[in-house]
Amino acid sequence: MNTDPLLREGERLDDLQRNHLKIIQNPEKFCFGMDAVLLSAFTNIRKDASVLDLGTGTGVIPLLLSARTEAKHLDALEIQPESVDMARRSVQWNHLENRITIYEGDIKEASHLLGRGNYDAITVNPPYMTDHHGLKNPELPKAIARHELLCSLEDVLRESHALLRPGGHFYMVHRPFRLAEIITGMTKYHLEPKRLRLVHPYLDKEPNMVLIEGVRDGKSRITVEPPLIVYDTKGQYNREIYNLYNE
Amino acid sequence: MNTDPLLREGERLDDLQRNHLKIIQNPEKFCFGMDAVLLSAFTNIRKDASVLDLGTGTGVIPLLLSARTEAKHLDALEIQPESVDMARRSVQWNHLENRITIYEGDIKEASHLLGRGNYDAITVNPPYMTDHHGLKNPELPKAIARHELLCSLEDVLRESHALLRPGGHFYMVHRPFRLAEIITGMTKYHLEPKRLRLVHPYLDKEPNMVLIEGVRDGKSRITVEPPLIVYDTKGQYNREIYNLYNE
Repeated sequence: MNTDPLLREGERLDDLQRNHLKIIQNPEKFCFGMDAVLLSAFTNIRKDASVLDLGTGTGVIPLLLSARTEAKHLDALEIQPESVDMARRSVQWNHLENRITIYEGDIKEASHLLGRGNYDAITVNPPYMTDHHGLKNPELPKAIARHELLCSLEDVLRESHALLRPGGHFYMVHRPFRLAEIITGMTKYHLEPKRLRLVHPYLDKEPNMVLIEGVRDGKSRITVEPPLIVYDTKGQYNREIYNLYNE
Repeated sequence: MNTDPLLREGERLDDLQRNHLKIIQNPEKFCFGMDAVLLSAFTNIRKDASVLDLGTGTGVIPLLLSARTEAKHLDALEIQPESVDMARRSVQWNHLENRITIYEGDIKEASHLLGRGNYDAITVNPPYMTDHHGLKNPELPKAIARHELLCSLEDVLRESHALLRPGGHFYMVHRPFRLAEIITGMTKYHLEPKRLRLVHPYLDKEPNMVLIEGVRDGKSRITVEPPLIVYDTKGQYNREIYNLYNE
């Protein structure tokens, strides 16, 4: 039984293990994953920065960034009304209305909605998959979060370029199998790739995530960081991941 | 004192630790590095393939590939006459004249010299550095091997596309700080990046080499492999590297 007046049927309040923050999620619809946690930790958001999270879902990234950074304000854009509503209630639960604003809208029109050149940093955990074959009776929130049904990588990059000020920072988590497309696309939209980190479940396995930072109008030179290995040989979280979840 | 009639003043005969192969090198000029060994091991050259090594230097890559693969023929192109001469004498020493041919010529004119669409695979360990500031009285062979004095990455990619048959494989070792340029350039010249491996000196260090495979006219989807870690925590070669040098 939910007793909190901010919770609706099927929802639960999950602990973000940081500054006592909570997030409202519905496990039937969509729950955030390690991707969002790693992306938040990968950013270098400066004090007083104006930040935007594109396709925020239930708002996990702005919530984490509110604790992790001294950003002045965190905007977030989400197209699904139900997710917008949950994200707004999470902001309310955490009393973060003065730092986080959740907008309902389409990434494809983001720079039209939120203005050009307004942001110092953008974060995005976009849908990873291009194909949407075999999506029978899709659970829509999950399908929209995972597959490029409503926006493509190209939409994300084009709008991010328009939304960022020159020299602004772009942070994305994605799947490594699209790395060539990601780098080529970022270069095309003048979000020059400057820093990259691959996340491997185990040391001897292929990576299943890539974290990448671009700088609007930056010069071509990228730093590839040491690999992030999630589990040690005994299947335990390695120290870096453990610390992320237990700071 | 050199007693072998194939050796000139200042040269020595080094063991390639594979099939009793030897290579003639002059340590005052240029000696091959781990890059060439790792690139050779990274390739998947098919039986009866026609292979070309661009900028072969003293010919280490075709020598290693002669032992490692069942390629039909290994061509190699080098611009510096002294290196061409050393490479040819190494081929002679190893009695590989029927499998390896060393051509003297410029990478920028490679497809004109060697024909378009003739090769199943290309290997290249190009100069890594774009800047040639501060090269005072450069030791020319080393400078040409390390800096883009005589050819650029773009020259290598353009000519490789022209030299390969459609579906042919391109293998390169380079420095990670140029990864964005490498991937963008390969895509531009339709050498679609298909496989990538980063080489880290230690697990917790940034990579110092990137191995990349492209396929001429391939579709966009890349496999990023597990990291190759050169030294373990005790400073010993890890097993994979040890095996490469002791097969």
